[in-house]
Amino acid sequence: MAGVKLIEVKEEIMADNAKQAETIRGELHGKKTMLLNLMSSPGSGKTSLILRTMDGLKGSFNLGVIEADIDSTVDAEKVVAAGAPAVQLKTGGFCHLDATMVRQGLDALTEKNFDLIIIENVGNLVCPAEFDTGAHKNVMILSVPEGDDKPLKYPLMFSVCDLLLINKTDYLALSDFDINALRKRVLVLNPKIVILEISCKTGAGIDDWIDWLKKEIEDFKK
Amino acid sequence: MAGVKLIEVKEEIMADNAKQAETIRGELHGKKTMLLNLMSSPGSGKTSLILRTMDGLKGSFNLGVIEADIDSTVDAEKVVAAGAPAVQLKTGGFCHLDATMVRQGLDALTEKNFDLIIIENVGNLVCPAEFDTGAHKNVMILSVPEGDDKPLKYPLMFSVCDLLLINKTDYLALSDFDINALRKRVLVLNPKIVILEISCKTGAGIDDWIDWLKKEIEDFKK
Repeated sequence: MAGVKLIEVKEEIMADNAKQAETIRGELHGKKTMLLNLMSSPGSGKTSLILRTMDGLKGSFNLGVIEADIDSTVDAEKVVAAGAPAVQLKTGGFCHLDATMVRQGLDALTEKNFDLIIIENVGNLVCPAEFDTGAHKNVMILSVPEGDDKPLKYPLMFSVCDLLLINKTDYLALSDFDINALRKRVLVLNPKIVILEISCKTGAGIDDWIDWLKKEIEDFKK
Repeated sequence: MAGVKLIEVKEEIMADNAKQAETIRGELHGKKTMLLNLMSSPGSGKTSLILRTMDGLKGSFNLGVIEADIDSTVDAEKVVAAGAPAVQLKTGGFCHLDATMVRQGLDALTEKNFDLIIIENVGNLVCPAEFDTGAHKNVMILSVPEGDDKPLKYPLMFSVCDLLLINKTDYLALSDFDINALRKRVLVLNPKIVILEISCKTGAGIDDWIDWLKKEIEDFKK
């Protein structure tokens, strides 16, 4: 009984969310602000990527950041210390961001003229994939220590993303991670996804990510 | 509106779940079968730990395994290949196990005389912490590459566990992971938690885990 009710309520919430996400997407399109939703497991390197991205876009594009965590402000503090406008959303136990929460984040950003806003979603390979945040692009990180079997276990996340960043390639020497096997598993789920290999620690591959991102922003603004 | 309804439905489901979990815990107690719920992020080493545990308990205790994944059977296949009775639950998108799903897993195990059954929960540091599975002990893994700040971000998971295993200590040399800082952050949330350092890859610390586990099973059977 409870299960059926839950499914009905969930469908209603998903429909509401989809509507709100579409509104956000349209509004930001009008402002020429691209919204990018960054997702991964806990500790895959989302905040480190944002710090690298701030560096890479400096002088070209204006970046804002919406951080989400269940209960902490450490990520937004790091981003602000590094010089970008950022707000922290505390989800209060919620395991993902939805469009309403993103709206609160957008409203909380005091500066308004951004070329790009990155949402750092809650660290979770499951639930964030189900909720449209209003983003124009969805990007995920999989880090080498997590293993190359993850597309088999979390297929939805790999299916909804435009770009997969394989991070912590500096761990490859210590690991039996098989990049070719990973690529095959991902491309079966999502033939259009772009896959890049990076290390936020050493900087390897970061230029490729910045090139991809700049081109996406330029195309978006056309 | 939808939000309020969701909270009400969630509370109802949580109450049902707590009741079912209590029933499972009591039944298994009567059979002297300890149920252990193993949780972590994706790729922290849950299946590797189970394989190590099969080895460590061989000849002493009879082990069964309930694997859970959103959509794959690779973990149960590994466990069965290594020689333990295992069933695979596909959660069909659900981000955690609840007591009803665990009941299905217990029913599906054809052998019935276990000293220990390990549940490998869905890889997720958020949702599994909220749902009582009926387990007698909750154990989590945090792996070194995930970083030492995770207790700040996922406090509930660290609060509900009896034991924390810090896995992939073989990565410590490549990492700025601060074990003392991690210990302090965890003990603030959960002063009674036991913390052990292991590497499923090299085998370092596995004896400490097996010693802890054997003592828990012996105490449980008294």
